[in-house]
Amino acid sequence: MASSRPANRHTLRKRKHRPTAGSPPGTLIADPTAPKPVIRVMAYGPDQLQEQEITDVEGLAGILGRQPVTWINVEGLGDPETIVRIGEIFGLHNLALEDVIHVPQRPKAEDYGDHIFIVTQMTSLSPHLRNEQVSIFLGPNFVLTFQESAGDCFDPVRKRIGDPRGRIRQSKADYLAYALIDATVDTYFPILERFGEVSDALEIAVLTAPKGDLIPRIHHLKTDLLSLRRLIWAQRDMINVVIRDFSALVSDPTRVYLRDCYDHTIQLLDMMDTHREIAAALTEIYLSGVNSRTNEIMKVLTVIATIFMPLGFVASLYGMNFDRTASPWNMPELGWALGYPLALGVMLFIALGLIGWFYVRGWFQETKILR
Amino acid sequence: MASSRPANRHTLRKRKHRPTAGSPPGTLIADPTAPKPVIRVMAYGPDQLQEQEITDVEGLAGILGRQPVTWINVEGLGDPETIVRIGEIFGLHNLALEDVIHVPQRPKAEDYGDHIFIVTQMTSLSPHLRNEQVSIFLGPNFVLTFQESAGDCFDPVRKRIGDPRGRIRQSKADYLAYALIDATVDTYFPILERFGEVSDALEIAVLTAPKGDLIPRIHHLKTDLLSLRRLIWAQRDMINVVIRDFSALVSDPTRVYLRDCYDHTIQLLDMMDTHREIAAALTEIYLSGVNSRTNEIMKVLTVIATIFMPLGFVASLYGMNFDRTASPWNMPELGWALGYPLALGVMLFIALGLIGWFYVRGWFQETKILR
Amino acid sequence: MASSRPANRHTLRKRKHRPTAGSPPGTLIADPTAPKPVIRVMAYGPDQLQEQEITDVEGLAGILGRQPVTWINVEGLGDPETIVRIGEIFGLHNLALEDVIHVPQRPKAEDYGDHIFIVTQMTSLSPHLRNEQVSIFLGPNFVLTFQESAGDCFDPVRKRIGDPRGRIRQSKADYLAYALIDATVDTYFPILERFGEVSDALEIAVLTAPKGDLIPRIHHLKTDLLSLRRLIWAQRDMINVVIRDFSALVSDPTRVYLRDCYDHTIQLLDMMDTHREIAAALTEIYLSGVNSRTNEIMKVLTVIATIFMPLGFVASLYGMNFDRTASPWNMPELGWALGYPLALGVMLFIALGLIGWFYVRGWFQETKILR
Amino acid sequence: MASSRPANRHTLRKRKHRPTAGSPPGTLIADPTAPKPVIRVMAYGPDQLQEQEITDVEGLAGILGRQPVTWINVEGLGDPETIVRIGEIFGLHNLALEDVIHVPQRPKAEDYGDHIFIVTQMTSLSPHLRNEQVSIFLGPNFVLTFQESAGDCFDPVRKRIGDPRGRIRQSKADYLAYALIDATVDTYFPILERFGEVSDALEIAVLTAPKGDLIPRIHHLKTDLLSLRRLIWAQRDMINVVIRDFSALVSDPTRVYLRDCYDHTIQLLDMMDTHREIAAALTEIYLSGVNSRTNEIMKVLTVIATIFMPLGFVASLYGMNFDRTASPWNMPELGWALGYPLALGVMLFIALGLIGWFYVRGWFQETKILR
Amino acid sequence: MASSRPANRHTLRKRKHRPTAGSPPGTLIADPTAPKPVIRVMAYGPDQLQEQEITDVEGLAGILGRQPVTWINVEGLGDPETIVRIGEIFGLHNLALEDVIHVPQRPKAEDYGDHIFIVTQMTSLSPHLRNEQVSIFLGPNFVLTFQESAGDCFDPVRKRIGDPRGRIRQSKADYLAYALIDATVDTYFPILERFGEVSDALEIAVLTAPKGDLIPRIHHLKTDLLSLRRLIWAQRDMINVVIRDFSALVSDPTRVYLRDCYDHTIQLLDMMDTHREIAAALTEIYLSGVNSRTNEIMKVLTVIATIFMPLGFVASLYGMNFDRTASPWNMPELGWALGYPLALGVMLFIALGLIGWFYVRGWFQETKILR
Repeated sequence: MASSRPANRHTLRKRKHRPTAGSPPGTLIADPTAPKPVIRVMAYGPDQLQEQEITDVEGLAGILGRQPVTWINVEGLGDPETIVRIGEIFGLHNLALEDVIHVPQRPKAEDYGDHIFIVTQMTSLSPHLRNEQVSIFLGPNFVLTFQESAGDCFDPVRKRIGDPRGRIRQSKADYLAYALIDATVDTYFPILERFGEVSDALEIAVLTAPKGDLIPRIHHLKTDLLSLRRLIWAQRDMINVVIRDFSALVSDPTRVYLRDCYDHTIQLLDMMDTHREIAAALTEIYLSGVNSRTNEIMKVLTVIATIFMPLGFVASLYGMNFDRTASPWNMPELGWALGYPLALGVMLFIALGLIGWFYVRGWFQETKILR
Repeated sequence: MASSRPANRHTLRKRKHRPTAGSPPGTLIADPTAPKPVIRVMAYGPDQLQEQEITDVEGLAGILGRQPVTWINVEGLGDPETIVRIGEIFGLHNLALEDVIHVPQRPKAEDYGDHIFIVTQMTSLSPHLRNEQVSIFLGPNFVLTFQESAGDCFDPVRKRIGDPRGRIRQSKADYLAYALIDATVDTYFPILERFGEVSDALEIAVLTAPKGDLIPRIHHLKTDLLSLRRLIWAQRDMINVVIRDFSALVSDPTRVYLRDCYDHTIQLLDMMDTHREIAAALTEIYLSGVNSRTNEIMKVLTVIATIFMPLGFVASLYGMNFDRTASPWNMPELGWALGYPLALGVMLFIALGLIGWFYVRGWFQETKILR
Repeated sequence: MASSRPANRHTLRKRKHRPTAGSPPGTLIADPTAPKPVIRVMAYGPDQLQEQEITDVEGLAGILGRQPVTWINVEGLGDPETIVRIGEIFGLHNLALEDVIHVPQRPKAEDYGDHIFIVTQMTSLSPHLRNEQVSIFLGPNFVLTFQESAGDCFDPVRKRIGDPRGRIRQSKADYLAYALIDATVDTYFPILERFGEVSDALEIAVLTAPKGDLIPRIHHLKTDLLSLRRLIWAQRDMINVVIRDFSALVSDPTRVYLRDCYDHTIQLLDMMDTHREIAAALTEIYLSGVNSRTNEIMKVLTVIATIFMPLGFVASLYGMNFDRTASPWNMPELGWALGYPLALGVMLFIALGLIGWFYVRGWFQETKILR
Repeated sequence: MASSRPANRHTLRKRKHRPTAGSPPGTLIADPTAPKPVIRVMAYGPDQLQEQEITDVEGLAGILGRQPVTWINVEGLGDPETIVRIGEIFGLHNLALEDVIHVPQRPKAEDYGDHIFIVTQMTSLSPHLRNEQVSIFLGPNFVLTFQESAGDCFDPVRKRIGDPRGRIRQSKADYLAYALIDATVDTYFPILERFGEVSDALEIAVLTAPKGDLIPRIHHLKTDLLSLRRLIWAQRDMINVVIRDFSALVSDPTRVYLRDCYDHTIQLLDMMDTHREIAAALTEIYLSGVNSRTNEIMKVLTVIATIFMPLGFVASLYGMNFDRTASPWNMPELGWALGYPLALGVMLFIALGLIGWFYVRGWFQETKILR
Repeated sequence: MASSRPANRHTLRKRKHRPTAGSPPGTLIADPTAPKPVIRVMAYGPDQLQEQEITDVEGLAGILGRQPVTWINVEGLGDPETIVRIGEIFGLHNLALEDVIHVPQRPKAEDYGDHIFIVTQMTSLSPHLRNEQVSIFLGPNFVLTFQESAGDCFDPVRKRIGDPRGRIRQSKADYLAYALIDATVDTYFPILERFGEVSDALEIAVLTAPKGDLIPRIHHLKTDLLSLRRLIWAQRDMINVVIRDFSALVSDPTRVYLRDCYDHTIQLLDMMDTHREIAAALTEIYLSGVNSRTNEIMKVLTVIATIFMPLGFVASLYGMNFDRTASPWNMPELGWALGYPLALGVMLFIALGLIGWFYVRGWFQETKILR
């Protein structure tokens, strides 16, 4: 996992395409590799639903207001002129447009008088952790969304719009905005469950067999969780701002639903914190495990050395070549009839004595962590 | 303890049965293995007490309002239709019903105008730590509770309802809701006392004999305390919200009792924090203990090696085969009359000298931690 | 210290005598081993002082109101009936009475309309750290105190009451309550000074001679400080509540004195935090010290092994028995006239070279921590 | 990086040129090495732009008010008399002037009635991290800036002033002040990206090859991030104060732009915190890596010693010189026909047995961290 | 540094001369070793300045009010009667007088109606860190200060009072109080700069040569910084209270100066936190350094042992005494013509092979930290 993703790991924290310091605010620097915008419109009321794909951006002006709710979804940020033109049609502030294009921005909600500007982030694991910014402009009768690229988590919302008896068809634009925010928040649950599995696997690995390659894996899990936590935290604040500050455009019933969505972010943070605290404990456990093992290894070495050094000394002693003929004091043991068996006996006695001493001190009660 | 409970360990933090991302809010996905609901009603006033088990959910409509207080207790969440029907009868919001079914939710209290929705959690050790969600709807003259399964901590409350002179019979539905919340809060005390015992046992173990298998046990204690702490914290917030925000349905005298219940959660958090701080210290103590032991083991090895290496060298020296006949310079010691005793004396001198040096440096003052 | 107090260590954090979960609030479960209550009354005004010991609790009703201030002091909680009866006479809430009996409670202050209920804790070192709950009911013209057992820190207060010119005799009941709270707060200073001495002693020990038995002592100091800190923190909050919330019963001049008492708790917390931060640093220093020592021990081992292994190898080399008669290539050195002196010279050269190499690398500059 | 910059490292945290304790407030102690002031004026309105360099400070009084906005930029703080004279001309408080000269000050915004005093800091990497204070006085129709030395990040702002259709030419002095603050905030992005690269490089190094020289580099990264974080945090607070408190001089549209600038500081803090948390993890990873390697090294030593000590002992045993002629008990093995092959076989058996034992215990499964 | 100051180290945290628990508030227990009070009066207005030393405390009453501002400075707290008498003359509360005498108190500001009571602390390094309490009473036309002993940081203030054109002579008593507080705050800057130098020196030492005696020095730096931080924090709060709460006695212009003084405490805390974070990192770096060195030492040992153990084994092998005459299988190598050169060759091969293996594994790339 660790080695295969350096390229993708930093998607959550890299800021791309900043204008030069001192540039006028609202300068739009498009990413040249970003896909060209595709504009899809869903206009609906309790009785009607019109879907169409817009090719000429000028056609947008005429569509607005024909139905109670109009959802304009722009996929791809590769053509700043189009986006600027949409901004002019809808009367959007150029600072907001700058945030649409200079992805990624932190989730936030800002008041621009007659419309609200909301930044949210959806995440996916396909196959690596990726997040994509969704910029939402909520007006009295429209929702305008910008996505970084094609493919999103909004298909269930589209399906619900397709159902004439659904609550979404009976409601105003604020409910659609809620449904879209809720859909992006829901994308975090599978990600977090995946992290939970990784965290549990690392927990078991570190408790049973603390190998060196766990350290980078724990570290990457921790940094991923950190980035994700910061994202969810901002998401939570954004929803809170929408609930609290924008009573003109967000009705009371929708507020109840947003409160539920807010609860989900709290729950995400709760799960997140559990994973983070476990991940934080893992390095400590790893260190304890490694030190325990070093301790065990030292025990083996010490036992072996403590037993064989005296034995080897005794053997070396009787390997000395003092001249027994020079005097009777010179190594008389070598000439004893039972010299060798006695020497072996002394060695055995020393060995057993040391083993007994180690046994009494408990050195042979192996700790479990060493297997 | 550690190895026998992986299956149960995560009951406090797993989220089950989430609808797909983008589903309409209020989608009820019942757990197919959940038990079917059993409905029991206790309707009472100062003078009367009626108890019955309801089999047809439609009968509920007729029961309400005949007595000052009606407690409808639903055990088992396995039949979403029944729960939806109860929701219709009592006019409950589908977001609240979603939270009833998609257990576990964090403890919380929400205002739905004519009723309050309260989520609380009771815990048990039978034999492993388990928590079960109790969802409470408090209306002007009813309390509606949903439990995940049969068996609860409410028997003493039922007994108190049975006593015509008890305060509970004289009071309104808010007092019953308090009594139920209080009963769930009281289930945390034995759990925490059990954790306190585990924590004390680990404390003694780690201070006297830091073995490797303590690390997973400390880790599991810490993660359990973390989960439980988060639960009690949410419980505390929930009670605080009930005290502070719902003056319409919760009377002043009941508020005094809730404040007492709030105090209990503070006390739980206090006990909790003591256990957590001790548990947090244990890993550190373990590490210090392991490192102290490694230090001791190294001392033993170093003492043995430092003494026997020079001795072994001297012995090897006089085991060399230089040709004494070639010149008088070649190992004349071997031919000395007292060569061997002198060599032994030198060895003894070296050994005693080193032992004395180690003694002076204090290497033989054993630390207590090694036994 | 550590081994002699397990029985007493937990007095600050054990909760005793909780009723079963779900019991009605206000259930009084007395500790059967608690001493029977002894009731002493001091009734006084600027001019008069009456002291008596009450044996029949019913006599209390007649005493109240005869003097400007009546202090009823109940020592011993062993007889719940008496306490319940006192509660009836003074019109006390049964939740407050429950807190009187179910010691220990956290320090707190609660408003019950015509009286205030204050829980405070006094501590002593006789010889181990002990804390005892004092429950104070402050009414317009009385102070009712409950202590767990005989013996308290109020003798100086009694003496001041005995002095007709003292401020206490000129003041109302609120000043007496302040004097009692202040006396309990003052009991923390000697305790904290004692902890300061223990902390300083451990600091010196860990910096000069980090032995293994310091770890449990540091740990016990830390947990004691944690418990005590929590207590003082609650004490501080309690005083703050009294100053802030109870203007009806607490006069402005007394409030100035309470602010001084509040300052003392701040000062206690300040001293506390210094001790705690030092205690927290000690484990880290201990670990560094142990690792430094292991490092030193390894140096000794490595120096000895690095010098004697090559020497021993050379000696072993010339102990080989290759047949010098088989060919002139077989160990001709053994036959050299200066073979032995040369071999010794080579060994000396190797030894001095290695010692020089170690010296240049600074291995002989001993660190101070090893002595 | 580490060794080459001690001289520059502390530019962010050193306070220079403090007056003696007790000096009157507003005492100006100029740094004698600071460059002499150069004064440049840009006066502009929607239609006109006048640029000039002022040599006589008295000329300033006549310039003010001829155009809607006058920007007086003073580069160099080496001549306190000039600065005091400017202060008199514009009616500046001497405490503010003191902060202009006694660089560096923390970013802050202060209200002096008819003008605002703003301190901001711009940073650069040329080649080392440097920060330079910009002091901004914002009046109704002027912006007066003081820089420590020549060279700044304001060239794009000057270019925008040069463009008659630009928003800056249409706006008042508050927008110019915003543009200047925004330009200083923008200088932090490249710095932070550079730190991000250093952090990523250290992350990879510490995970793959934890060498000793990483520790100082990690430490310097951490301290640099700490200093920078404190700076950005103060910057953020300063902008917040300007948005919140100075409605008289800062118009609503400019406030929207400042909010965007505020968002940038939040984003900087976000990036900062990610870097800091990674940097904080690195020391821990390093320690784990070192301990893992020590563990591996010990394993190698223990395997070698455990195998060769018994073998060496057996070899020494049969090197003993017991007199086989003295008795048949003395080392009869030496005379066996297959004595030597048997001895070799025993040694082989011991060696293979130990290798097998180590293999079974998993000592040969090398951890990745050791390469 | 460490060993020479135990006696002085705790001046910042020891509380002296507390009355017994339960004593009446306001009991004055003077330190018998404290110097006797010396009273100096400076009375001044824009035109006049009178200085005198008072010997009879009763003379004070007549001095007050003759000049716009009267500064009474009392040096030495050794005579409680004098201080009580001064308290009576100025109408001071006995709780405030208690705080004057029972030094040290935390910096604080308290309102006593017609005067403010301010506690501040000045520090010095002469030669060890010392702090001395200055108690300031600010009334409408007087400032009354109490110092622990002779010698203070107020000489520059006295000099400024001596200058008839100075702002201090034109201002009221509140400006004098500000000037005194500012002078005490200014005494912290040199202390902090000194700590910064110590911190930098320790940083370099620990990064280049982590010796054992650094640990106590780092520890003492950390505890000193802790104590000082707590002091500055309280100082900051005190100034904040004066700015915020005492509008009656503190005029708006003085408030601006106090805000500047408040800024200085913020700056002190900023410097402080940098030092503290560096000091906190040092122990960690020390531990990493020690473990890195242990690792290096182990490498040396392992390399030596791994090379010489097999060599020694081979040498021992051919030192065995198997009887070559007993059979051709017994050590025929000893009789080979090239036996000895072959054995040496085998040893060389083993040694080179192992050295090569170590080289390939990178054991010879020494880390920088070991020198």
